[in-house]
Amino acid sequence: MDFDLVVKNGIIVTASEVLSEGLELGIKNGKISCIGTSLPISRTTKVIDAEGAYITPGGVDSHVHLAQKNSPTGDTWETGTRSAIAGGTTTVIAFASQQRADTSLYPVLKDYHQKSTDQCYCDYGFHFILTNPTPEILRDELPVLAQEEGITSVKLYMTYELMKLNDREVLGIMFACRSLGMTTMIHAESHDMISMIIEGLERNRNTDPYFHAVARPRIAEDEASYRAISLAELSDAPILIVHMSSDVAVSHVRDAQTRLLPIHAETCPHYLFLLSEKIKGEPHDHFSGAKHVCSPPLRHEPKDLEALWQSIANGTFTTYSSDHAPSKYDHPGGKRLGLVDGIPKFSKIPNGVPGLETRVPLLFSQTPACKAPGEEKLSLPRFVQLTATNAAKLYGLDGRKGSIAPGYDADLIIWHPGNKGATSITQADMHHDIDYTPFEGIEVGNWPRYTLLRGEVVWDRSKGIVGGMGYGKFLKRGQGQILTGKIGNTPRGMKPGEREYWL
Amino acid sequence: MDFDLVVKNGIIVTASEVLSEGLELGIKNGKISCIGTSLPISRTTKVIDAEGAYITPGGVDSHVHLAQKNSPTGDTWETGTRSAIAGGTTTVIAFASQQRADTSLYPVLKDYHQKSTDQCYCDYGFHFILTNPTPEILRDELPVLAQEEGITSVKLYMTYELMKLNDREVLGIMFACRSLGMTTMIHAESHDMISMIIEGLERNRNTDPYFHAVARPRIAEDEASYRAISLAELSDAPILIVHMSSDVAVSHVRDAQTRLLPIHAETCPHYLFLLSEKIKGEPHDHFSGAKHVCSPPLRHEPKDLEALWQSIANGTFTTYSSDHAPSKYDHPGGKRLGLVDGIPKFSKIPNGVPGLETRVPLLFSQTPACKAPGEEKLSLPRFVQLTATNAAKLYGLDGRKGSIAPGYDADLIIWHPGNKGATSITQADMHHDIDYTPFEGIEVGNWPRYTLLRGEVVWDRSKGIVGGMGYGKFLKRGQGQILTGKIGNTPRGMKPGEREYWL
Amino acid sequence: MDFDLVVKNGIIVTASEVLSEGLELGIKNGKISCIGTSLPISRTTKVIDAEGAYITPGGVDSHVHLAQKNSPTGDTWETGTRSAIAGGTTTVIAFASQQRADTSLYPVLKDYHQKSTDQCYCDYGFHFILTNPTPEILRDELPVLAQEEGITSVKLYMTYELMKLNDREVLGIMFACRSLGMTTMIHAESHDMISMIIEGLERNRNTDPYFHAVARPRIAEDEASYRAISLAELSDAPILIVHMSSDVAVSHVRDAQTRLLPIHAETCPHYLFLLSEKIKGEPHDHFSGAKHVCSPPLRHEPKDLEALWQSIANGTFTTYSSDHAPSKYDHPGGKRLGLVDGIPKFSKIPNGVPGLETRVPLLFSQTPACKAPGEEKLSLPRFVQLTATNAAKLYGLDGRKGSIAPGYDADLIIWHPGNKGATSITQADMHHDIDYTPFEGIEVGNWPRYTLLRGEVVWDRSKGIVGGMGYGKFLKRGQGQILTGKIGNTPRGMKPGEREYWL
Amino acid sequence: MDFDLVVKNGIIVTASEVLSEGLELGIKNGKISCIGTSLPISRTTKVIDAEGAYITPGGVDSHVHLAQKNSPTGDTWETGTRSAIAGGTTTVIAFASQQRADTSLYPVLKDYHQKSTDQCYCDYGFHFILTNPTPEILRDELPVLAQEEGITSVKLYMTYELMKLNDREVLGIMFACRSLGMTTMIHAESHDMISMIIEGLERNRNTDPYFHAVARPRIAEDEASYRAISLAELSDAPILIVHMSSDVAVSHVRDAQTRLLPIHAETCPHYLFLLSEKIKGEPHDHFSGAKHVCSPPLRHEPKDLEALWQSIANGTFTTYSSDHAPSKYDHPGGKRLGLVDGIPKFSKIPNGVPGLETRVPLLFSQTPACKAPGEEKLSLPRFVQLTATNAAKLYGLDGRKGSIAPGYDADLIIWHPGNKGATSITQADMHHDIDYTPFEGIEVGNWPRYTLLRGEVVWDRSKGIVGGMGYGKFLKRGQGQILTGKIGNTPRGMKPGEREYWL
Repeated sequence: MDFDLVVKNGIIVTASEVLSEGLELGIKNGKISCIGTSLPISRTTKVIDAEGAYITPGGVDSHVHLAQKNSPTGDTWETGTRSAIAGGTTTVIAFASQQRADTSLYPVLKDYHQKSTDQCYCDYGFHFILTNPTPEILRDELPVLAQEEGITSVKLYMTYELMKLNDREVLGIMFACRSLGMTTMIHAESHDMISMIIEGLERNRNTDPYFHAVARPRIAEDEASYRAISLAELSDAPILIVHMSSDVAVSHVRDAQTRLLPIHAETCPHYLFLLSEKIKGEPHDHFSGAKHVCSPPLRHEPKDLEALWQSIANGTFTTYSSDHAPSKYDHPGGKRLGLVDGIPKFSKIPNGVPGLETRVPLLFSQTPACKAPGEEKLSLPRFVQLTATNAAKLYGLDGRKGSIAPGYDADLIIWHPGNKGATSITQADMHHDIDYTPFEGIEVGNWPRYTLLRGEVVWDRSKGIVGGMGYGKFLKRGQGQILTGKIGNTPRGMKPGEREYWL
Repeated sequence: MDFDLVVKNGIIVTASEVLSEGLELGIKNGKISCIGTSLPISRTTKVIDAEGAYITPGGVDSHVHLAQKNSPTGDTWETGTRSAIAGGTTTVIAFASQQRADTSLYPVLKDYHQKSTDQCYCDYGFHFILTNPTPEILRDELPVLAQEEGITSVKLYMTYELMKLNDREVLGIMFACRSLGMTTMIHAESHDMISMIIEGLERNRNTDPYFHAVARPRIAEDEASYRAISLAELSDAPILIVHMSSDVAVSHVRDAQTRLLPIHAETCPHYLFLLSEKIKGEPHDHFSGAKHVCSPPLRHEPKDLEALWQSIANGTFTTYSSDHAPSKYDHPGGKRLGLVDGIPKFSKIPNGVPGLETRVPLLFSQTPACKAPGEEKLSLPRFVQLTATNAAKLYGLDGRKGSIAPGYDADLIIWHPGNKGATSITQADMHHDIDYTPFEGIEVGNWPRYTLLRGEVVWDRSKGIVGGMGYGKFLKRGQGQILTGKIGNTPRGMKPGEREYWL
Repeated sequence: MDFDLVVKNGIIVTASEVLSEGLELGIKNGKISCIGTSLPISRTTKVIDAEGAYITPGGVDSHVHLAQKNSPTGDTWETGTRSAIAGGTTTVIAFASQQRADTSLYPVLKDYHQKSTDQCYCDYGFHFILTNPTPEILRDELPVLAQEEGITSVKLYMTYELMKLNDREVLGIMFACRSLGMTTMIHAESHDMISMIIEGLERNRNTDPYFHAVARPRIAEDEASYRAISLAELSDAPILIVHMSSDVAVSHVRDAQTRLLPIHAETCPHYLFLLSEKIKGEPHDHFSGAKHVCSPPLRHEPKDLEALWQSIANGTFTTYSSDHAPSKYDHPGGKRLGLVDGIPKFSKIPNGVPGLETRVPLLFSQTPACKAPGEEKLSLPRFVQLTATNAAKLYGLDGRKGSIAPGYDADLIIWHPGNKGATSITQADMHHDIDYTPFEGIEVGNWPRYTLLRGEVVWDRSKGIVGGMGYGKFLKRGQGQILTGKIGNTPRGMKPGEREYWL
Repeated sequence: MDFDLVVKNGIIVTASEVLSEGLELGIKNGKISCIGTSLPISRTTKVIDAEGAYITPGGVDSHVHLAQKNSPTGDTWETGTRSAIAGGTTTVIAFASQQRADTSLYPVLKDYHQKSTDQCYCDYGFHFILTNPTPEILRDELPVLAQEEGITSVKLYMTYELMKLNDREVLGIMFACRSLGMTTMIHAESHDMISMIIEGLERNRNTDPYFHAVARPRIAEDEASYRAISLAELSDAPILIVHMSSDVAVSHVRDAQTRLLPIHAETCPHYLFLLSEKIKGEPHDHFSGAKHVCSPPLRHEPKDLEALWQSIANGTFTTYSSDHAPSKYDHPGGKRLGLVDGIPKFSKIPNGVPGLETRVPLLFSQTPACKAPGEEKLSLPRFVQLTATNAAKLYGLDGRKGSIAPGYDADLIIWHPGNKGATSITQADMHHDIDYTPFEGIEVGNWPRYTLLRGEVVWDRSKGIVGGMGYGKFLKRGQGQILTGKIGNTPRGMKPGEREYWL
């Protein structure tokens, strides 16, 4: 019972409890070793006094794009993970992304390792984006990823010309993942609806950034989500539908969860805080709306936000991620790609917004820690589930990340006591390599005072970034847990066991 | 007030009323001229005494396949329409079918006219099946079909390798039809689900006819139906989903109808009376199950039948058609194509069952005319809607076909009084050119005693077919009515008028 | 074929068809004798030229309060039925109402006959309101009502201190009605919710008329409607929920109809055209809002209206009635009862609005007859169903009232051709004995030019009332039809036949 | 860091995690003081070696009837709590029950304290059953209960002649509880439906025990549950619907939870494991079915069980309680009260079954601890939520009971490692004072090896009861947490703030 670090005098929050005040965390070798009181302090033990503040698990952001080829002006692993720790996130799961021409995943993986190794301020893992799921890849390479490389999740797109897979390919991936215990993440929007609308908008010269929101109506998400769920029901395989923004689509998830299908759902800060009005830009500069172009787009009505907050609170959403996929605004290779010969062309604007740094504080601002009684939108344990625990479990980091319990990595956010940490989000405070934040001006009631990664303070709000580049390590992830529903369902109308005839 | 024919002493049933006994129908020049009592009888007036029997409108069968290239052993226009009138159907709307290679519809239309002209015992029209909806066809030819050729409906397939269209093509057709007031019929099954399952079944050598039912699970219909409805909601265009067999899919239609989307639904006799057990064939001859191979397949459970009867009664189904798409069983070019080197291969069995002749009596058998009180499954007016009125309205024959009212063609079924016409369905009684009926042995409580087409008796049960080949005429159809919902909806989440930006 | 009257040159609309122009109606002995063309005109035959206008069935208003003790300043049978024919209604079914102290219905019936005999301008029948359903009444008197007196429907209240029945009493009535084939009409609002709220409002001195709308929130209707449906499901007995105003309650009906329960629903003009804003009265005279006090109250939001119009169009509503239950406004025994010592007290305001005269034109104004294409809210056949056919069928007048077909009473509305009959509703034009109309100023696109009752013109818009008091006759009604669902259901979770153990 | 007891070598399960093997619990003064590894062992420290077994929180059974007047042959506080600890339950919340004649709760409370003080083997609290909620009680006494006596929940009945409250009374209680932060438990069955059916059954002499299940059909629960939810929605007050057994009723709860209403639901072991077949008794002794008479009754179909297991897994059920409400079977004052002159009369059979001892092992048997992979019905954390955590939180024991974390009472179940504890439930093993168990013969995969209450072993399976009577203490409970939904909703159709007018 000799600790490297003791954090005392905090209020520890887990996915199920707000523990009593005054408990102490004993940390040894980067892990939480003990939770108790009156822990022994030796000469070598460092002590942090939380001063009565909340302590929550370091954030796990499971949907992050860093240094992908298709976003040349986005964050690198260095700048992205630097931004992460400044906002309380200690683990990111970002993407290694196959290009259509890649017939093997191994070189891609190697490349992504090269780009990230020794570059990161926080721990990290990879999901693999599949855009060309050849039989060989599914049969030979996925098992290697899952069992040797620690990559236990894949992502696929139902839209985007360069990435979309057809339903047959989606099914192929689901079945391959099923036997490996891998989770399939799905970007669910109807490509055919969207491409038809874009064609019509361009024909009618409606190409300002705002028309991006017109081009991707909620019904495109609703339909594709229902389809994704159906494919998963047939496959009996767990999925997560990423960045959901439409209440009808979410209601399909809810229905599926009620029936115990293994369907998980994710939403993001921008769908909870921002509306399509933003994409109209400034009165004198409509193109500035490009800063808010992401897919699915920001939605139209305050009731759209409310519907998503409802699903935050009622448990339908499994995870809450940043979908950090930024491009610089004032850069010819960034958002300005959407200005063609000086004319706005929304379909050329790189999709995505930055959000890695602001994700955790934005959600924390809606908890009882920051809100008057009755004004909060979610409880503190639910905050922990959404920002850390669920992502860790779903993606195979349980036992290591996402919780405050003995045996887990000592990844912690120590908040300011009371409302002392309140601030207004502004670009000047950001640590990413992007020239704006879409959340500019939004008030949050607190901000991480300290971020600890494996027992080391890596962010001290009074000093800034204190962790070192390269301290963040690659995480080989294990098999994820199914958090809603179960495997073993029989689709409605099929006879039990009927699937065996063709598997 | 001089009639060619007076039908007296019947009980006239319309889509909304069972009229009082004893009314008389005065018929002149093939049309119903008058409904009343004590109609004047001149020397030239023929008289038919209905003897107190029900008189219902001649059936309109709006889903019939005759002499299509892909079913070489099916009925011709001659044998199909002969079969129709023997079962009380006086109008068929069959298909003119584009092949993938056809870059213009005009030659196809000409061909179908050639095959049918002077060959028919009953009146007929064409829906056009589109398998290659080029921009030219949509822009130039569809208007000609609708406005000059009297073809105001198209059909498309979401499955079958040789026919399926992708969602973009489906949307293209819907939008083209929208401005022309045309109705789009959709075969909704997920091609990608089915083809994957078939591949698996064949890999596992599960190729008996029964596996056809395994290969096309209800979820494939459910998903595709939801997708079709979504595409129609985006398009604001009326559709009819053909031959629905799954209660979940039907519930999506019901929900859409509740929201006033213009979504119509059809079912068929085989989904109401037969179960997948039939596809297992005889104990000593599994391949005989091939007789019951159709798509969607017969479903597994009695509760599947009950669910569809419920939607018959509650109004969700708009039409009830035969989907007459037969192939001879004992013929090398027919169902036996599914025997490859003596080994059953379900995927090679031509899809479809005969049903044109039995359609109307099967449904009539479930009305109060044939059932004890409390045992009926639908009312007589609902029977009339489903067998005649709704199809006539939806497909642009209102005012001519489908009702008993002055001004309408005198197309009538005069049933036997009481239960005198009761019979058991048997192949020996059929008039089609197919060597079996899937309804063999089913008892029906009545059978058309007379069928009248435009005032002429064409079927007299005591004499057989008395109408002449070629008496049946091609019907140029007008714009159809929308029977559920309306045009002018805004999809959930879109702003009113948003569609205008891209139309 | 000798007619007393021929109506020519109209467009006849039935519950299922808009017939072709130019048909003629031959009328003999007050009944429609013939529909045809070129009907013979003798010297004694009168002729009305409809000039191309629509002809619809005379309205059947199945929810009308006349000369009930609890509304001393309402219309009498004379003034109410006078008002009816001026607005195209030729049949009213009003209430004979038991008081709590009445231990037999026979004296009540006699009394209502005395009040109405020889007083009516249109035909009429009685529903019986039960407020004290003793076992003797249920066992001995209801059969007499149904089988001898032609009263085949009862109404009960789940609210109002003087009328409400508890669930046990409701079940008793349903079971009694079940074996007699009677229909139970139900006013469904939660008495206990409402009385608690009223008590609170009065405690807080919130007693202006507007608080009537606060006192009876939609949830009170939602809950009671669900309860009524549940009781009917247990009883296996047909019901109609009167004057529905809440979309959640209506969705329960829709669900029940989908499951084939025999649940019918009614709405009224004021719930389709007016909002609670009206109850606020004039800026200088809040009490004038009393004119719009009825129960359930007018609802708050335009979307409430839209939801009901949706259910008008999608078929959920079976009937559309006036719930004519007026009180004079400027009369100490009328609405001014709600002024107690000069202080408004909403709970003392007599409930109800006048609407018998305006009902049919208001709905007609929303059909294609009066609206530009795409602007209509319902079709003409649906208008006929809602204003006439369905009420006639549900309440046992089928074959006599509610349709235009040979054998039916010649009850007709002949409208003005085109929009010539357009007008704005105003009290000055009304024929009731009430001093206001809640629909003042609403534009309707047409008004009945002629109303015919049993072949006689009783309203000629150019001359006014031309029918005679006393021409209207009492209608002994037969057993009604079940228009949605069926008898014979087994409640979910019960075993088939389980009901027999306790019936 | 000096511990009275260290439990080592277990696998600790919390409401959100299965912690890593080998952690140690340090216990001091009856509380968990520390979770860690290598905890210091002093001379006075006792050590328990869990041998790799699961350790879960001591059960909190929140629905228990002990020594109530209406069940004279049921368990006393002594025998009930003895039974509790033998089955792993360390906290019971049982009822203090007002009789109709009681006009003050204080004497009742005193009486229940007298019956329980120094009698209990486990800790305990009281819910108060209200059967006569006078204004004085609601206004004056409830605050005293909540704020001084530690009784923060009440229970009411919508059925049973001697206990049922009407909706107005229910609302009165909800509003009173709302301002005090109290939770209202509701027995939701439609009294009027049930009493009518019972009357009919008795009239038809269908009085065997089995008819108890006929007398209380699922629809009675469905309707009352919908009503209870509606009353709670109007009140904006948290409720828990007790012992739910019908999937339709549960679906209403699910819908309400989706909308964030504060609606909680409970089910019980007998609804998860037993069917109505049991109430038929032995072939030669139908009356023995009386052993299985409880309300709501056991349901008919295996799919009823499956539906409830689904809601166990998907999170709809908040708590899982025994509803221990037993009567001796072979005793003239027990179940045999239902034999009247030797003739079975189901309506006289005391309702209820014993289940306090078997509750926790029955649920544990369906977790991965006892089931092969894929065969489990719920996860271990969900087991902990249902048996302990949620009840503790909902009923104001958070921070003390229901979790394994520093600061909580050291209430623990230490299971047998592996399947060594497997057993078959049998009356001979029970510790209650009842002569049967309804779960006789059911196999459970494990049984508590040790039960610890506040750090003391009170049950050692090898020795039996080792705790002392009177060691169990009364728990003053605090304000409960709302586990689903929130306070502050506006019922659909009401305007925000509208409630303020009448509160």
